[in-house]
Amino acid sequence: MLTFEHALGEVAKTVNVMMNHVLPVASGPEKKVMEAMKYGVMNGGKRVRPFLVLASAKLFNVSEISALRVAAAIEMLHSYSLIHDDLPAMDDSDLRRGQPSVHKKFDEATAILAGDGLLTLAFEILSDPATHSDPAVRSDLVLALAKAAGADGMVGGQMMDIEAEHMNLDIGAITRLQRMKTGAIINFSCEAGAILGKAADQSRQALRAYANDLGLAFQIVDDLLDVVGKEDAVGKSVGRDQQAGKATFVSILGIERAKSQAKLLAEQAKGHLSVFEDRADLLKAMADFVVNRGH
Amino acid sequence: MLTFEHALGEVAKTVNVMMNHVLPVASGPEKKVMEAMKYGVMNGGKRVRPFLVLASAKLFNVSEISALRVAAAIEMLHSYSLIHDDLPAMDDSDLRRGQPSVHKKFDEATAILAGDGLLTLAFEILSDPATHSDPAVRSDLVLALAKAAGADGMVGGQMMDIEAEHMNLDIGAITRLQRMKTGAIINFSCEAGAILGKAADQSRQALRAYANDLGLAFQIVDDLLDVVGKEDAVGKSVGRDQQAGKATFVSILGIERAKSQAKLLAEQAKGHLSVFEDRADLLKAMADFVVNRGH
Repeated sequence: MLTFEHALGEVAKTVNVMMNHVLPVASGPEKKVMEAMKYGVMNGGKRVRPFLVLASAKLFNVSEISALRVAAAIEMLHSYSLIHDDLPAMDDSDLRRGQPSVHKKFDEATAILAGDGLLTLAFEILSDPATHSDPAVRSDLVLALAKAAGADGMVGGQMMDIEAEHMNLDIGAITRLQRMKTGAIINFSCEAGAILGKAADQSRQALRAYANDLGLAFQIVDDLLDVVGKEDAVGKSVGRDQQAGKATFVSILGIERAKSQAKLLAEQAKGHLSVFEDRADLLKAMADFVVNRGH
Repeated sequence: MLTFEHALGEVAKTVNVMMNHVLPVASGPEKKVMEAMKYGVMNGGKRVRPFLVLASAKLFNVSEISALRVAAAIEMLHSYSLIHDDLPAMDDSDLRRGQPSVHKKFDEATAILAGDGLLTLAFEILSDPATHSDPAVRSDLVLALAKAAGADGMVGGQMMDIEAEHMNLDIGAITRLQRMKTGAIINFSCEAGAILGKAADQSRQALRAYANDLGLAFQIVDDLLDVVGKEDAVGKSVGRDQQAGKATFVSILGIERAKSQAKLLAEQAKGHLSVFEDRADLLKAMADFVVNRGH
């Protein structure tokens, strides 16, 4: 896995440079929100979603600048969701990757505004002609991200997660929750390359199928790490789901079945990529990485 | 003014129908956020920004559906900003137009998510082919709204407003704050018609100049109503700025000079519309309405 982790680290560095480049700067009293946006984004994240954008874009010979800008936009959006999820009224998390969360480092009002600013910035980046010369591509990117991030996607998934805290969800309901809360953005990350490259339907469908399985495997491993992971390796508090009485893939399937299910999904994800022959090695390596992380 | 208020009311009705049409619906546990989004949007607002979109679109023979969809998007965005501004960590307002604010009617987590959902929905509407057949128009709308709403616009203005609470702002700083916090979205509302109609630069500049003066007049009158308005007529708590020790146009200029300044700006705003000859009557009437409201 050393080689893949190196590749992932290199992508993170490049994406961080691009994010730094597109973040707003200011000198007036409003600069506090810019500082909070930067703090929330530059959090040492692995940049899994940007990696998916770059790896899928590579399949269609998309220019690196285009792919990097879309990768940056997705990570801005992902960071906004973490900042708002950490708020006292939501998950009330004081730590994020071992550092104070944004509302702890700044304050709640600034954290709310920083999230709002990052969400808005994601759409500004996608619609900027610097991202792609074809306005149809830019408009498609915006539409696809808005659908993935909105009430029928991530925002609805987070609402469902809060509402379901003390419901006895079955495996179907948990799967639906995951597809909305985290799956939709992972799907978009993989499809973004196809949108940028104006790929044929068959390629899009293959990437969508890969992303569906990858996202589910990712969530199952997340649930596993919450049960069996060590706090310093995972980088956030563990055991929170159990404390909250939350139904998870692990609470329903048990540890062993959850592990084998994640592995099965990763294999299945890789299988969908056969249409790209040997050009999808990075995406395949990501599927392996997802089920092996934290070990 | 009766005729204008009637026209404004008719626009509000039509825009409400369109907003209802584009709001998401759901039956799962996530439906709470959809209900909160609808509650936050269907709040009896005057729909000033949608009116500006429709009135400016009319200058360029834009189809009514296009203009109505953009009007709905702007009102979704405006409603998100009100929901987040009302939160306990921000302005801590329990009432909005005489009704419980969203976090009072639902709860804080739902209010944060409802705001996030509405902001995202605004971009989904703008990028949807149903809004305009030309993707360049859709992409331009997204870019212009994101710039107006983000850290260099509305979000930065709200941050500045919070940070400046106990600073002694001068008239230049307050004007800058207003341009970011409320002016940028009013500008976009007026320019949206020009973007939809692919208007010439001269027309765009005229609308921008009109919007700049109108937005400033609007804010001065808002500050005046906070001092001299009656709570039931204004529909929200009054005297809040003074209690908070906030510098406003009125605290700096005094009541009489603020009133004459607002009138002067409204006249100036109308003057910029001369390029449209007698086709801009609605926009002119809006300028008069803004300085006469609450009387």
